[in-house]
Amino acid sequence: MADVIRPTDDESRALAQSLMQTARFAALGVLLEESQPLVARVAFGLDAQGGPVSLISDLAQHSQALRRHPVCSLLIGEPGAKGDALAHPRLSLMAEAAFVPRTDPAHAVLADAYLRQHPKAKLYLQFTDFSFVRFTVTAAHLNGGFGKAFRLAAADLLPGG
Amino acid sequence: MADVIRPTDDESRALAQSLMQTARFAALGVLLEESQPLVARVAFGLDAQGGPVSLISDLAQHSQALRRHPVCSLLIGEPGAKGDALAHPRLSLMAEAAFVPRTDPAHAVLADAYLRQHPKAKLYLQFTDFSFVRFTVTAAHLNGGFGKAFRLAAADLLPGG
Repeated sequence: MADVIRPTDDESRALAQSLMQTARFAALGVLLEESQPLVARVAFGLDAQGGPVSLISDLAQHSQALRRHPVCSLLIGEPGAKGDALAHPRLSLMAEAAFVPRTDPAHAVLADAYLRQHPKAKLYLQFTDFSFVRFTVTAAHLNGGFGKAFRLAAADLLPGG
Repeated sequence: MADVIRPTDDESRALAQSLMQTARFAALGVLLEESQPLVARVAFGLDAQGGPVSLISDLAQHSQALRRHPVCSLLIGEPGAKGDALAHPRLSLMAEAAFVPRTDPAHAVLADAYLRQHPKAKLYLQFTDFSFVRFTVTAAHLNGGFGKAFRLAAADLLPGG
């Protein structure tokens, strides 16, 4: 496996950062009981420090799973409608989730940043079952297209990283 | 949670079947060691019986994870470029993966069906590290858009189901 991973360079860092900055949704992978993975679509944004966040409902099964087992994964980078989806760059994040209570002062700060990226999220923010989740990235796999695989660190994903 | 799940009806079955038939790629969730989920993009197609299949490389970390722990999840149903991605229907499959050896007669049968859905997969089929994986669906969660959640059984996903 090791020999198919290319050395991280400025181009791969820039590609990963661009995927982070443009993603508006992600495929979130969580662990249900009995070691059953579940992948669900969630909203995706960045906080003021460039860290990934989502706004999710407590009613969703993936939220309940995240509260029990915060270790998760997020896939971002969506193919266009045409062409080979596997040639399109994407980024898999390994992360640890932390919920931000709605009563936490951080909630309002996050809401400000998030609404600039997701103007329509005003709707979801009204519902008391929705709350922000921060994801602390522990590792990232960038696939820039066929044969272009990279392993990135959390710092590689941040502007100037 | 139970009260937000709607009763399965013909409309939800038809929507799930349509997502299965039109998907050409999926977000695959697998389990790495130490209970770390990983979500990666994979190709997605159906075999002649309507069961989900993918064609994946042994070099990929998600392939190696699937061989160790075949219990996985697939998310299909891609939002368009515009509009609210969370209003777009999607389907999360819980599944068990089984690799089809390239020497198995089933490989050629699968390749025929698959190439009709993925004409460009001829490229990948030439590489000996690529093989088909069948997914036996154990449960499915359909999200038809905000507030439209359903729990489906494997039979609901098959034409006439």
